[in-house]
Amino acid sequence: MDKALSDKLMAVSVATLATALFKRGLRNQVIQGVHPVKAKGVNMVGPAYTLRYIPAREDRNQLTEFRNPAHPQRVAVETCPEGHVLVMDSRKDPRAASAGDILVTRLMVRGVAGVVTDGGFRDAATIGELAIPAYHTRPSSPTNLTLHEALDLNVPIGCGDVAVFPGDIVVGDDDCVIVVPQAIAKDVADEAVEMTAYEDFVVEKVKAGTPVIGLYPGTQEHFAAEFEAWRKSHNR
Amino acid sequence: MDKALSDKLMAVSVATLATALFKRGLRNQVIQGVHPVKAKGVNMVGPAYTLRYIPAREDRNQLTEFRNPAHPQRVAVETCPEGHVLVMDSRKDPRAASAGDILVTRLMVRGVAGVVTDGGFRDAATIGELAIPAYHTRPSSPTNLTLHEALDLNVPIGCGDVAVFPGDIVVGDDDCVIVVPQAIAKDVADEAVEMTAYEDFVVEKVKAGTPVIGLYPGTQEHFAAEFEAWRKSHNR
Amino acid sequence: MDKALSDKLMAVSVATLATALFKRGLRNQVIQGVHPVKAKGVNMVGPAYTLRYIPAREDRNQLTEFRNPAHPQRVAVETCPEGHVLVMDSRKDPRAASAGDILVTRLMVRGVAGVVTDGGFRDAATIGELAIPAYHTRPSSPTNLTLHEALDLNVPIGCGDVAVFPGDIVVGDDDCVIVVPQAIAKDVADEAVEMTAYEDFVVEKVKAGTPVIGLYPGTQEHFAAEFEAWRKSHNR
Amino acid sequence: MDKALSDKLMAVSVATLATALFKRGLRNQVIQGVHPVKAKGVNMVGPAYTLRYIPAREDRNQLTEFRNPAHPQRVAVETCPEGHVLVMDSRKDPRAASAGDILVTRLMVRGVAGVVTDGGFRDAATIGELAIPAYHTRPSSPTNLTLHEALDLNVPIGCGDVAVFPGDIVVGDDDCVIVVPQAIAKDVADEAVEMTAYEDFVVEKVKAGTPVIGLYPGTQEHFAAEFEAWRKSHNR
Amino acid sequence: MDKALSDKLMAVSVATLATALFKRGLRNQVIQGVHPVKAKGVNMVGPAYTLRYIPAREDRNQLTEFRNPAHPQRVAVETCPEGHVLVMDSRKDPRAASAGDILVTRLMVRGVAGVVTDGGFRDAATIGELAIPAYHTRPSSPTNLTLHEALDLNVPIGCGDVAVFPGDIVVGDDDCVIVVPQAIAKDVADEAVEMTAYEDFVVEKVKAGTPVIGLYPGTQEHFAAEFEAWRKSHNR
Amino acid sequence: MDKALSDKLMAVSVATLATALFKRGLRNQVIQGVHPVKAKGVNMVGPAYTLRYIPAREDRNQLTEFRNPAHPQRVAVETCPEGHVLVMDSRKDPRAASAGDILVTRLMVRGVAGVVTDGGFRDAATIGELAIPAYHTRPSSPTNLTLHEALDLNVPIGCGDVAVFPGDIVVGDDDCVIVVPQAIAKDVADEAVEMTAYEDFVVEKVKAGTPVIGLYPGTQEHFAAEFEAWRKSHNR
Repeated sequence: MDKALSDKLMAVSVATLATALFKRGLRNQVIQGVHPVKAKGVNMVGPAYTLRYIPAREDRNQLTEFRNPAHPQRVAVETCPEGHVLVMDSRKDPRAASAGDILVTRLMVRGVAGVVTDGGFRDAATIGELAIPAYHTRPSSPTNLTLHEALDLNVPIGCGDVAVFPGDIVVGDDDCVIVVPQAIAKDVADEAVEMTAYEDFVVEKVKAGTPVIGLYPGTQEHFAAEFEAWRKSHNR
Repeated sequence: MDKALSDKLMAVSVATLATALFKRGLRNQVIQGVHPVKAKGVNMVGPAYTLRYIPAREDRNQLTEFRNPAHPQRVAVETCPEGHVLVMDSRKDPRAASAGDILVTRLMVRGVAGVVTDGGFRDAATIGELAIPAYHTRPSSPTNLTLHEALDLNVPIGCGDVAVFPGDIVVGDDDCVIVVPQAIAKDVADEAVEMTAYEDFVVEKVKAGTPVIGLYPGTQEHFAAEFEAWRKSHNR
Repeated sequence: MDKALSDKLMAVSVATLATALFKRGLRNQVIQGVHPVKAKGVNMVGPAYTLRYIPAREDRNQLTEFRNPAHPQRVAVETCPEGHVLVMDSRKDPRAASAGDILVTRLMVRGVAGVVTDGGFRDAATIGELAIPAYHTRPSSPTNLTLHEALDLNVPIGCGDVAVFPGDIVVGDDDCVIVVPQAIAKDVADEAVEMTAYEDFVVEKVKAGTPVIGLYPGTQEHFAAEFEAWRKSHNR
Repeated sequence: MDKALSDKLMAVSVATLATALFKRGLRNQVIQGVHPVKAKGVNMVGPAYTLRYIPAREDRNQLTEFRNPAHPQRVAVETCPEGHVLVMDSRKDPRAASAGDILVTRLMVRGVAGVVTDGGFRDAATIGELAIPAYHTRPSSPTNLTLHEALDLNVPIGCGDVAVFPGDIVVGDDDCVIVVPQAIAKDVADEAVEMTAYEDFVVEKVKAGTPVIGLYPGTQEHFAAEFEAWRKSHNR
Repeated sequence: MDKALSDKLMAVSVATLATALFKRGLRNQVIQGVHPVKAKGVNMVGPAYTLRYIPAREDRNQLTEFRNPAHPQRVAVETCPEGHVLVMDSRKDPRAASAGDILVTRLMVRGVAGVVTDGGFRDAATIGELAIPAYHTRPSSPTNLTLHEALDLNVPIGCGDVAVFPGDIVVGDDDCVIVVPQAIAKDVADEAVEMTAYEDFVVEKVKAGTPVIGLYPGTQEHFAAEFEAWRKSHNR
Repeated sequence: MDKALSDKLMAVSVATLATALFKRGLRNQVIQGVHPVKAKGVNMVGPAYTLRYIPAREDRNQLTEFRNPAHPQRVAVETCPEGHVLVMDSRKDPRAASAGDILVTRLMVRGVAGVVTDGGFRDAATIGELAIPAYHTRPSSPTNLTLHEALDLNVPIGCGDVAVFPGDIVVGDDDCVIVVPQAIAKDVADEAVEMTAYEDFVVEKVKAGTPVIGLYPGTQEHFAAEFEAWRKSHNR
């Protein structure tokens, strides 16, 4: 994805993006119930590449399925483009895994930007130590075949009650993951950068003892001037 | 679908079918959490035709969407083949409707065999009075646009934690709905008819005072002979 | 409340009202998880009068509390104005009752228009037979003191995840209950009456074999003329 | 069980019993989430006979298990004493059945007073028509082997978050089921009969227009005298 | 609040307080489902100051609301007294935030003792690093306006299924949060200090190999003497 | 338990064991919803010794119960054999504790291998620091008497929707806990050791850039030879 856009999204929080989307009437873009396998302290940013699971039927989901080179889960891991985020629709069911450490390691090696499921990962403790951000509901050791059949690649899906279209920009921080529609990603990112500057200014003021009313949001006019000065002095 | 197969499936219960599938290692074919809008006293039988919903994004799901003649929900209602069952993946979310009485009336007029959602119907009281079986989780008055975007027609879906492939045979009775994989539907139906004969014999015996142990299942040999006589006398 | 407004709202469905509110950006006005104790076949309509419960603390909620003539639950039953709907915030917890048949009988005798809780009623089978509409989650025999302390009268509350302000217009049918903000109730009712006329026309057409695409919504122009003729002939 | 005790419990509601137990500090005796398969309009009363299920392990729960004459579910059906209520601990999991119509028919024929599960029944529509009260969470067609292994007979269990000890008195009405500890059943029944008399008097007064405050509970003295007169005139 | 009382409550666990309240018949004082945003290793202690949210209605909850200097959430943050704990009733719904890092920073600067919600915080990772204890259900990035309307200040509320009255003493440790009714706080604290002394003695004994039966609780008399000696030697 | 078996199970992951059991048709052996109180980085291994809770009835569960030297929870702590894992059936209800730090300390001192509940522990922060693995749902400060009555020792139970028979081998890692039926534990352990060797080989290859298709599982023949060489060079 565009480097400038990516840089901006690396520097803002999911909370700020959620507010910028709320302003545009999009109230439901944060993937619910999902958190980092391990907090990384830096954002995950990338376009969505999706994998859709449906419920497993026993005769179609024996271990031999994995021997099929066209098995969609394995193909997803090998085809998710570099810099993209693999987002899995596991129907919010963490009772069996969406993937494990070997596949996530492969994603890492391939330069994938991150991996998200509304189910759970097996080998989660190991995945947490890998140099790739991963988000899930909870650790889940059973193989995906137990409950999930990998079906479709890169179709629109639901993940944690959010619509995810291939190419939507996915951003995660240490709290949550949000889905930014591709068409407005640049505008949203620009606004979020502006909002972040003001929020950083606000935090400084609040830490110094300023009350929040009138400051956040800035309804007292003098704060506008103060903020302008602050921006200059901080190169923001 | 094949008339002989349909006739057999009209004459057996979902419970019996569930046991026949259990014998074949398929333990998870009953759609969970779904019941008839109104009990009809006769079975619903037909091949599955599917509609997939994903979570609604506000900018893509305004009322104007319904003016699009290609809107997948509307197209589903006009293309679901006669004698088929329209099965909707609403991600088990009944907080907004999957469909309402006008669309279900159209399905009825078109000769569709039934309609199933793991969400809810609006106008459910009206739908319950229509001459088409309908199954859902609970009544839900909000328009589907509130939470659901109709996306795909006739792809494999999940419904109530069950995999549904287009063409699978869907059977509903006054209790539940079950999905019978197409490839084994005939065998399963044949076995279910046999099981039903024995169960009917058992019910008669039990009502007459026979204990269930040894009779159900029939481990005492004399019941085999009694059952054979019963079949002849009842033309079963 | 205004008789003309009430008459209009008696003649439309909650589903239609939900769509009229959706058009105005209000997507979350149907009380979730609540249904009629017994379907009445006619609407419940009236302004909201509210009762707020908080969790019960054992020392404050012994049976002797009911001897207090100022107990808010009892006062609610005696002060809810005639023609109003008593709406209770039971925090979606049906494990203990919100009220029982004696209090609901008193509401009926007093001319209250209906009663709604996002918890459950005790004596529900009896309440279902009374000549007052009642909506709840499920029957619940334990006295409210077990889990609920009646606290406030006629303050804004939540009920089934919907905001209810005193005076909002509450409408229930055999499916669901919806909350129409007071300020827009007349506009919404007018629009719902119009929509209902068109929907009734559509149902007739669909039953006669017309496909829904182009008809519902009416994007094919000739339906506008047909509808106008239908209105005249039906006095709608 | 004692005929006099049974007669009293046939004539009071679960709600009244819940209040009588609440007075004694027992706040948690109503089985949560369970309702009649079909309302019967008369109470179910009898001592508890219990069946405990644990989660099914596939190798121990094939259909052949039912051929074992010592299978606890089948033994339960043949040994639950006449006049008792068979209560099943299905761990609140209705995704597979606790029993079906053949076993419930056998219980009926044997004179068992009723059957309760915190799971679901298969063949529920049929069970609803039998002359034996049955309570469950929802219909569930899969055989119990799918998720439940019948393990223990007549041990203390949990059912719907309530402790059930063998011999406890189980009472069900059209709303709910309650468990009355054996040692206090007579006292509780006696008090409930008294309470019911007063409640019936109250209902008459309320229907005639008397406000509830001061009447229910009866804190205004004149109601005591009126009630005494009412009792005489009604032989209560 | 009283310094002596506060000191005692800083030195006991929520578990010990729960048992002391259980002895007094209060079984339901631990806020369910809430945990520290980040474990601090020291207790949070202070009187409750409350904020009540109801479900958000879209027309009343646009971003412009925050420009209102009387917005209850902002006012709560500026008026919660020093040394108090701000407790928010978010109806157990963490799908949108109850507050974020700027407001929690302001609470910290103002000397507030802590903040609790039965919803979630946005900017949770940042809040976890602040020098103020915070408890929630899970991180939640969407602005509170998405689902919550701040309505009331310092009224009795429910939080995590517990009644919270303004002035009740709120105590949190690394496990849970408990609400101690104001009127009995001193007695409960005194007893908890005593219990803690005995528990510390018990832990020493258990670590040295003493079995728990007879020791915890101390039914073998010699432990009473040993404990007295231990108290003297440990100045407890 | 057998030292060789224990050593093998210390060296494999729960995920690998889950797959080995899946191959044998056991799909449901991972205890759902349970995680380590604190990750230990080493496995917990031991035969199951069980404790069964039922719902608490108030009159049977006052604090005085703990003075009874035969109280099953206390007896469990003193009789669970060294090297065994104490597994508690708390009916998946973490609203009250299953045990606290004193009892878990005693288990540690007695050489018990670990402790698992599908409820919650009180004093969880303290338990997390003890030298004994402990698994639960979440911290829960209320005494077990609030909701749980300890009833049975060492009977078959359910824990997190899994059947646990006394003597089954329980294995926990930093993700999850699994129950291996005693009769197949050796075979499963042997296979898991083999699988682990291959997985470790695969991880090395994947980190070095090899795609997963053909490698995991190893369908390309040359990997078999490579793996054999790797085993030799790594003494696996």
